[in-house]
Amino acid sequence: MELQFEWDQVTAFVRQPDGSLFSWFERFRCFHHLLYRIVNRAEADLTLKFDGKEIQLQINESLLKRFEDEGIVKQVFPLHDEKKRKQLLKNWALNWFDFTSQPVDEIYLYYGTKIATYFSFLGMYTRWLFFPAALGLALQLIDFGSMQLVVLPAFFIFIISWAVFFIQFWKRKNSTLLARWGINCSLSEYKALDTERSSSNRVHADHEKNFDANKPIEKKILQRDEWLGLLLRIRNNTIVALAIICLQLPFELAYAHLYEITESYILKLLLTAVYLLAIQYYTQIGGKMSVILIKYENNQGEESSAASLVYKVFGLYFMQSYIGLFYHALLHRNLTTLREVLIQRLIVSQVLENLIENAYPYLKYSYKKYKAVHKKKHEKGSSVGKTIRLATRVEKEYLKPSYTACIGKELEDGLFDDYLELALQFGMIMMFACAFPLVFCFAIVNNITEIRTDALKLLVMLQRPVPRTSATIGAWLNIFQFLIVTAICTNCVLLVCLYDQEGKWRIEPGLAAILIMEHVLLLIKFGFSHFVPEEPAWVKANRVRNVVQARDMYSKQLLRSISNLEMKRN
Amino acid sequence: MELQFEWDQVTAFVRQPDGSLFSWFERFRCFHHLLYRIVNRAEADLTLKFDGKEIQLQINESLLKRFEDEGIVKQVFPLHDEKKRKQLLKNWALNWFDFTSQPVDEIYLYYGTKIATYFSFLGMYTRWLFFPAALGLALQLIDFGSMQLVVLPAFFIFIISWAVFFIQFWKRKNSTLLARWGINCSLSEYKALDTERSSSNRVHADHEKNFDANKPIEKKILQRDEWLGLLLRIRNNTIVALAIICLQLPFELAYAHLYEITESYILKLLLTAVYLLAIQYYTQIGGKMSVILIKYENNQGEESSAASLVYKVFGLYFMQSYIGLFYHALLHRNLTTLREVLIQRLIVSQVLENLIENAYPYLKYSYKKYKAVHKKKHEKGSSVGKTIRLATRVEKEYLKPSYTACIGKELEDGLFDDYLELALQFGMIMMFACAFPLVFCFAIVNNITEIRTDALKLLVMLQRPVPRTSATIGAWLNIFQFLIVTAICTNCVLLVCLYDQEGKWRIEPGLAAILIMEHVLLLIKFGFSHFVPEEPAWVKANRVRNVVQARDMYSKQLLRSISNLEMKRN
Repeated sequence: MELQFEWDQVTAFVRQPDGSLFSWFERFRCFHHLLYRIVNRAEADLTLKFDGKEIQLQINESLLKRFEDEGIVKQVFPLHDEKKRKQLLKNWALNWFDFTSQPVDEIYLYYGTKIATYFSFLGMYTRWLFFPAALGLALQLIDFGSMQLVVLPAFFIFIISWAVFFIQFWKRKNSTLLARWGINCSLSEYKALDTERSSSNRVHADHEKNFDANKPIEKKILQRDEWLGLLLRIRNNTIVALAIICLQLPFELAYAHLYEITESYILKLLLTAVYLLAIQYYTQIGGKMSVILIKYENNQGEESSAASLVYKVFGLYFMQSYIGLFYHALLHRNLTTLREVLIQRLIVSQVLENLIENAYPYLKYSYKKYKAVHKKKHEKGSSVGKTIRLATRVEKEYLKPSYTACIGKELEDGLFDDYLELALQFGMIMMFACAFPLVFCFAIVNNITEIRTDALKLLVMLQRPVPRTSATIGAWLNIFQFLIVTAICTNCVLLVCLYDQEGKWRIEPGLAAILIMEHVLLLIKFGFSHFVPEEPAWVKANRVRNVVQARDMYSKQLLRSISNLEMKRN
Repeated sequence: MELQFEWDQVTAFVRQPDGSLFSWFERFRCFHHLLYRIVNRAEADLTLKFDGKEIQLQINESLLKRFEDEGIVKQVFPLHDEKKRKQLLKNWALNWFDFTSQPVDEIYLYYGTKIATYFSFLGMYTRWLFFPAALGLALQLIDFGSMQLVVLPAFFIFIISWAVFFIQFWKRKNSTLLARWGINCSLSEYKALDTERSSSNRVHADHEKNFDANKPIEKKILQRDEWLGLLLRIRNNTIVALAIICLQLPFELAYAHLYEITESYILKLLLTAVYLLAIQYYTQIGGKMSVILIKYENNQGEESSAASLVYKVFGLYFMQSYIGLFYHALLHRNLTTLREVLIQRLIVSQVLENLIENAYPYLKYSYKKYKAVHKKKHEKGSSVGKTIRLATRVEKEYLKPSYTACIGKELEDGLFDDYLELALQFGMIMMFACAFPLVFCFAIVNNITEIRTDALKLLVMLQRPVPRTSATIGAWLNIFQFLIVTAICTNCVLLVCLYDQEGKWRIEPGLAAILIMEHVLLLIKFGFSHFVPEEPAWVKANRVRNVVQARDMYSKQLLRSISNLEMKRN
């Protein structure tokens, strides 16, 4: 039931951590609504003049929207709050001594739930990494002598248990965060709510058309839609999988093979450079393709499209990041190359990536600024001299790049890239833990710098991002869980490789086939439920409709009884 | 917000399938409440006389409760509705030609959600069984020649996919049932609601004591309670597991071994009889022990205790039912004995069980009736002759046994036994599918008779059970899913046994150890999340409290504004 907000009922609301009444997301939405609600309320069309152009504003047309269409208003974006930004810069981005702890509440207040969730996940992940890192370091330094045979499996079991605990405790932490931010529902309810919100809108629309899922015809339509959607999703996933297997896999294997047989160091470096360039291109095209494919799926709401996209793009990057490692580890049992490549990936590319991540926006900004100043100078003529600067803060911030994902800005913001980076790192350290226990230490160093560079990027380099509601890590959680299961299998194979250096262990082809079949079936068992939803679409539509109807009826009745009382009073 | 039910607002309610306003459960609760609300409203204690006894009824004491304590009222139970019972008997229990389809709505109206859910699950399960049964029969009859090697793995893959589909589609069916019965929430919400209902009561109690989970002390108490509860649960599960492994396992193995080496058929039969007697005793004691252990866990609400009990008792029966089969199949690779035992279990014991299930209550009833008649005869003296009968229907139904579980009636009703039987059968047919594909046919025959005998038992033999709210199959779903995963592993081992009759396949001890480790880790990965809940207890308490508080505040404010209006009116 929706009631108007009245100032004297203010005590009924839960306050934000800083004492204000509305969150940054809510305020942003209000501003947005206010700005776009400036419409032509006159009886006739209005004619506006600007820069010699004449603009005809129709009745009830939004002024700002028109200006945007005409190109007079170039962008609507939230500005940085200089005072808070400086404070955050001091407390957070430049506070190098708090290795993993961050002022999450302040981040939430400044950036909204989604970014705060990312940083608190990153912080917790890094904090938890200290355990395996310490153990990995111990394994590397101490010589266990005859116990060496038992130590590695023990480490493996520890790592998997650690990961399982970590994921579960992250869920608990996420629940705590929800409670802290005044979101009054449990984690699973929150997820359900997300998808419901969008379908509720649809139902509202259906409701007006007198759509009733109880009728057999409408039920049939909904059922058909659901299965059609499923088929579309399967088709798209097949396309992506085929593209990965038929196009990417041979390329990756070719690179790994060439790397394996090349002996000169310079050639290797050259090869890697060429490979990186090519694969960058391929994954970008793949990402764009995925975005296009997503549009042809009728996903239930934005959240589900985002998840579908995450799975597809992760598939691409999974192949890119790990297939070479698998090649070295499993096919050639070449653990030295594996370690080499792991170090290279974790240190060199991540340092480079962090540098690029920060330098690229800065360079872009500088170039834009230079161009803008140049243009202004040109306009005002050269007579005024060299003292021309960008006058306002707004102009400066407009020139800064916005926080967007590499795969386009429609569905996701820049957090997509950051989560992707994190998931790939997690996969790397988990799947090859047994081959190189030191890998966890590199990951820690990486993540501690990652926290600060990401913070700096957000605070200094980019426009203030538009706040988003999502307060969980969404589909990435499933990806992390999938990586744990994969890690169990790969580490087992690695252990076999390690203990069987001479290749004496024989495995009958029949037994191998049965083992592979077992793993495929386990995958089916645990993967299938992600495909077919628990609740048929028509039941869901019905349920949401019932809720809406009950609410409507209830509030109508209440209002009627109140107005009855008022009528009697008069 | 709770409002009084008013007759003129009746259109706002969703009707039951038969057009009545309240479900059988709601009506039962109302009757119950009305009966027990007859209290002494006088200013002083009342003295009642009955059969020469004097009973002092204190102020505000419930009359019926007192009568129950004194033994005047022996039992309060719902009576059968003769008209509807006869109709159901005709449409359902004796309608042998509708093999698996049942009048679910009528069952729901007569018995409530829980029993209707059981029967619709049983019906769907039996219906789905036709696919693998047909395939299993084909496998048995047709000679595939050289293709035989490929046929069995294909059958295995089909069976697992079938089971996975079945479970997912059961969830969908359950959602549909919820919608049909006017329960307006999704399956996962429904589960959450179940646990919430009980904790909400606790919070209400806490609320009165001014308990606030925001305060650090109370938060600490709740956190301590949660971890203590977890430790208690782990301790109890360890006790059960140890009892199973140390007491039951040797016994079971001894029986299986003796069965294996005994050659005389009569000795085998004798052995089985002794074994069945002993194991019956053991499982009953185990069940009772589990119920006692449960009481020392601080489970959140009844639903969670019931689940905990289900897991423990199933552990006992799992060992009892399958370990012998494993012994024959894996250790001795003796597939003929395995098949023999399977047939024996599925046909002989299930037929016997069905007979006992129905005959035992009938005999009990007859005996009780005989005794009651005898007693009456005795009381009235032998002069009246032999025409004494039980006068009223109430007396007759009182003598019928009630619908209780074998492990005691506190937590579960008779459905526990029925679900247990079903789960054990499912495990049997899934886990040994590859050794004996015909097993599915036996299961179908079994289930078709099971539907009718269970219906007969409920309609004819027993008292009408007290309706229960639960509208899902609860923890049994997890058991079914666990059985599917186990089936994947056992069938793989069976396939190895089948294809490697000569025992030529060698597996290195190192490789075997790694494989076992892998499976244990996979079990940890998929089992752990059942142990630690996603949401910390204090967050949950806080959330529920917030909801309660908001509701209270909201309704108070509303009432205040209405009364303000009324005051102004006067």
